[in-house]
Amino acid sequence: MAPQIYVCVTCRSAGEPDTEPRPGMLLAEATEQAAAGTDVIVRRLRCLAKCTRGRSVAMRCNGSWTYIFGGLDTADAGALVEGATLLAGASDGILPWRERPDVLKRNLIARVPPIDFMESDL
Amino acid sequence: MAPQIYVCVTCRSAGEPDTEPRPGMLLAEATEQAAAGTDVIVRRLRCLAKCTRGRSVAMRCNGSWTYIFGGLDTADAGALVEGATLLAGASDGILPWRERPDVLKRNLIARVPPIDFMESDL
Repeated sequence: MAPQIYVCVTCRSAGEPDTEPRPGMLLAEATEQAAAGTDVIVRRLRCLAKCTRGRSVAMRCNGSWTYIFGGLDTADAGALVEGATLLAGASDGILPWRERPDVLKRNLIARVPPIDFMESDL
Repeated sequence: MAPQIYVCVTCRSAGEPDTEPRPGMLLAEATEQAAAGTDVIVRRLRCLAKCTRGRSVAMRCNGSWTYIFGGLDTADAGALVEGATLLAGASDGILPWRERPDVLKRNLIARVPPIDFMESDL
């Protein structure tokens, strides 16, 4: 499976006026543009239920951990695509810490293991 | 796939002294006890990268959305198992809002769609 970025298109930042297009939709469009010509698939969806830290995305590949980021800006679209490409190349399914763009360190909300993940020693 | 609850066993709450066993491990044990005799599978893991809102779990079933909760207490173990059972019974893969225990409303951090999810009209 190609790396996928799910972008919440209903997101607005706290305190922002409720204008159209929503900031989340603008982030989706910017990410789609940044992903053009790459293997990264950008999918729009409604609501990752993380509205208090809005403009949010989830990112994953086949067999990888899923990463959830929040508090994003349209200027972060390139970093998202860069991160998804990094994740696709990670044989252990974990987004490398050092190499990832700074915004993917600062704005990480949570990560979730792949289906049927088991720690080997717990 | 039976409903699964992943419990971070390395979690401690912000400001708590770093004692052993970690609060996350205690939550894992309480959840395992609450799940005894049910279909719910409890898996221990290290770090969902959500340390600022610690004692955290992820929950999902086959084909369902994945739900991430934080700021939990061992007293919430029963509610986690109840929620996982609700999710397993949800034909649309979405944890019902009304019926879910209150802590699964208040302490929701994010939700992530199933693999290859596509909004039908976006």
